[in-house]
Amino acid sequence: MGEAPTRRRSRSGGGAARRAERTAVSIETAKYIERNVPLYEVLTDEALAVIEENAETVLEEIGVEFPSNPRALERWKAAGASIDGTRVRIPRGLARDLCKTAPSKFTQHARNPEKSVEIGGNTLVCAPVYGPPFVRDENGGRRYATMDDFHKFVKLGYMSKWLHHSGGTVCEPTDVAVNKRHLDMLLAHMTLSDKPFMGSVTAPSRAQDSVDMCKILFGEEFVQNNTVMTSLININSPLTFDDIMMGALEVYAENNQACIVSPFIVGGAMAPVSVAGTLTQVFAEVLAGIAYSQLVRPGAPVIFGAFVTSIDMGSGAPTFGTPEASQILYGAGQLARRMNLPFRSGGGLCGSKLPDAQAAYETAHTHNAALLGGVNFMLHSCGWLEGGLVASFEKFVMDADQLGILHKFAAGIPIDENGQGMDALREVGPGGHYLGCAHTQANYQTAFWRTEVLDYKPFETWQDEGARDTQTLAAKRVNTLLDAYQRPAIDPAIETALIAFVTEKKASMPDALE
Amino acid sequence: MGEAPTRRRSRSGGGAARRAERTAVSIETAKYIERNVPLYEVLTDEALAVIEENAETVLEEIGVEFPSNPRALERWKAAGASIDGTRVRIPRGLARDLCKTAPSKFTQHARNPEKSVEIGGNTLVCAPVYGPPFVRDENGGRRYATMDDFHKFVKLGYMSKWLHHSGGTVCEPTDVAVNKRHLDMLLAHMTLSDKPFMGSVTAPSRAQDSVDMCKILFGEEFVQNNTVMTSLININSPLTFDDIMMGALEVYAENNQACIVSPFIVGGAMAPVSVAGTLTQVFAEVLAGIAYSQLVRPGAPVIFGAFVTSIDMGSGAPTFGTPEASQILYGAGQLARRMNLPFRSGGGLCGSKLPDAQAAYETAHTHNAALLGGVNFMLHSCGWLEGGLVASFEKFVMDADQLGILHKFAAGIPIDENGQGMDALREVGPGGHYLGCAHTQANYQTAFWRTEVLDYKPFETWQDEGARDTQTLAAKRVNTLLDAYQRPAIDPAIETALIAFVTEKKASMPDALE
Repeated sequence: MGEAPTRRRSRSGGGAARRAERTAVSIETAKYIERNVPLYEVLTDEALAVIEENAETVLEEIGVEFPSNPRALERWKAAGASIDGTRVRIPRGLARDLCKTAPSKFTQHARNPEKSVEIGGNTLVCAPVYGPPFVRDENGGRRYATMDDFHKFVKLGYMSKWLHHSGGTVCEPTDVAVNKRHLDMLLAHMTLSDKPFMGSVTAPSRAQDSVDMCKILFGEEFVQNNTVMTSLININSPLTFDDIMMGALEVYAENNQACIVSPFIVGGAMAPVSVAGTLTQVFAEVLAGIAYSQLVRPGAPVIFGAFVTSIDMGSGAPTFGTPEASQILYGAGQLARRMNLPFRSGGGLCGSKLPDAQAAYETAHTHNAALLGGVNFMLHSCGWLEGGLVASFEKFVMDADQLGILHKFAAGIPIDENGQGMDALREVGPGGHYLGCAHTQANYQTAFWRTEVLDYKPFETWQDEGARDTQTLAAKRVNTLLDAYQRPAIDPAIETALIAFVTEKKASMPDALE
Repeated sequence: MGEAPTRRRSRSGGGAARRAERTAVSIETAKYIERNVPLYEVLTDEALAVIEENAETVLEEIGVEFPSNPRALERWKAAGASIDGTRVRIPRGLARDLCKTAPSKFTQHARNPEKSVEIGGNTLVCAPVYGPPFVRDENGGRRYATMDDFHKFVKLGYMSKWLHHSGGTVCEPTDVAVNKRHLDMLLAHMTLSDKPFMGSVTAPSRAQDSVDMCKILFGEEFVQNNTVMTSLININSPLTFDDIMMGALEVYAENNQACIVSPFIVGGAMAPVSVAGTLTQVFAEVLAGIAYSQLVRPGAPVIFGAFVTSIDMGSGAPTFGTPEASQILYGAGQLARRMNLPFRSGGGLCGSKLPDAQAAYETAHTHNAALLGGVNFMLHSCGWLEGGLVASFEKFVMDADQLGILHKFAAGIPIDENGQGMDALREVGPGGHYLGCAHTQANYQTAFWRTEVLDYKPFETWQDEGARDTQTLAAKRVNTLLDAYQRPAIDPAIETALIAFVTEKKASMPDALE
């Protein structure tokens, strides 16, 4: 396994912190967030019990669909479900019982062990945007994404201090055939970054390729005994588990790799128009999906996913950062915790076409809800634009900067003697000024979160420098980070083997469009 | 008292809701928020007790300054404090005891009784930006504010559905002499709007003018028996209560009008660099200030204020929407609730020069913390830009639109039969679509919050319409609202009397610069 000499950011300062202060560019990666603050709970226990009961009713009376997947139907039948065609009706309590073998927390290993992440409990792991077919930047506007764009996003992710995870399909490289692009994407994550990453889910064979490449990168035995990928399995809401996604889930679960079992819901279209109704469906779907993962392999690591947003009832467009989306996020987090399962939701979600105020309002609402709602794995935490159709270079660095806020808030409020600051109050007194006092001098370097994107300059300076808005400041930072990027070290033999695998695989395939 | 035929927005729909949907412009005003959701508490009871103890130590050992205010020193001495020059040292427990006569909740009456607000308990009242000497709009850029700008902001406030309060100095009308402008500002709030407003605090005589004008507007007896202004009394942190602000507080308290007793703190400069240390100072200052208001008149309505932000330790610039500012807001809210006092904090605070992504990130962080942190009175909830130096027309309508999100979230999650939506789940089933089902049809008009500013259009439509960003969309809305503005009805005799008061007062004064 390759090892890069990567430094962890230490809040207590020291040489690394001082160096980081002298230069705008650093390759430090913050440790995943461990919340030292309470969570926010929007639903009462009584309301949660109603939703849980209703979800059991949905599974028992209405059931779920597992189309084109006879093996799944056999598994469900053996477990005690009632099968009618491809409809699976699950007796009350069965799905919940099956979920009990799923771990409440797991480690996803990175090739750089310092960047491995814990997913579950009080942690929050931030991963970038996933899935957009388009990219946007300030100069080039909106265009189809290419493998070159993909490489740039992986590099930006590697360079982003507050981002713990390299993600998966940070954008769809549309210049590579669909059946081959997963190989190039994985190779990029494995060689251009040393953070943890996600595997392919667009076909069971591509999930297997992902596992096989991990065996080259981490060693076969290591992969057998450890989780090295956390991959996104969307449920085709309402209540349908399509064979491609389930096929990928089967490969990952069999190999002890983690799946995010995630309803993908635009409320009002793919779930009831009410928040409690949507939560009922989310919970039923997750129960069925995670139960199925445990039928494939008891103990396989999973995450309770909830990607739920609302709809503009005027136009039918999906909307993000809305109060209903926040309510659902908070409620789903409570349901996940009652199941003792890791929780995925949130991100830098927005509907705006540009990285403008709308994008930022919507993103901040979602970031805040994710932090206080107990999210353990936050996909799309940076770079998402236009309802997920676009990966924005500027928004990637803007949002990644914002993630620092979540780290600082989550650390909580120190209440020790230094935190109390009574010596400062005594030293300064009425009418005085704190900037020069001993307590301030001792603490100023770490007292406040500092942005690397936003502007705090005096008006006149800002105006003289071109009156730049956030997008323009972010464009500059994108270039700064890409210019400063250096590949993390990797064992040349492993890299050669990975390239050989990809080359051989691609040579064996015709180009396919899906 | 003049009465305008104003409609309250009713969430249950009906004729007003349907009409509102057919037109982009409405003069409905939402009822102040009554939270039906829990609050977020960041500090443990043990931590709060430490901060409270330390604050008592500050008051007892260090004390506070009441310069140039012999009457205040006499009041404190009579109450049992120790006086040394202008330093007031307050024995442990005394300030807290004095605060006990302050009401936990009060009504601020508007001239339109339907727009009166309750401040305290589970309510949240939103008021606009206060104090900027500059204004900015998309076409005119940044310039000194004038009385014409002031009128426009009051009109926008009147037209903003989610804004409950007309505010006070929505911008400083710099084209009117300092000693006269409070008269023009009050006249504008009283005649161009029918929402509640704030009085002048820049001199005790101007506070008295505010009271006198209210007596004309509401009737003398009504003002004697009711609170009709909530005005902003800043503490000169650290620990100094200047005679001008205290003079205004004395006038308001004597007249049973409400004061927000509010430390104005840039953390690290005017308070210790640590969150717990800042909270200690905030609590000590508010205890002393509210105790003093109760010495002036036991039972005078007050609000526990906390305007606290952090500093950029590189440049010394104040910063907004930071994690430390949120921590302080949450902590101060807990301290206020333990005192059983209404709480003021938050707002649409930001440091950005433009209504861009930075402004929106920072504003959304502050809005969210205010909602979940239990704020009862949110000054600056819309229009604030550039650290409060600028009132932005576009940001005013952008933020005012965002306040709708707070209303919807605060309403909570209905869990009744309709909220559960089981009929929808049964009707639609796996693989179906909810848009057409009976439950959706019955609920879609009120199910989701709807913006009146942000963009959800298809990309192609948006591009054809000029690829407008949020600022540009907001500029259009500013014009739409101002074009549609109509003055609320007012008794002509009252208006004539107000104008006569202002004219006579102004004629009796030389122009003064402060």
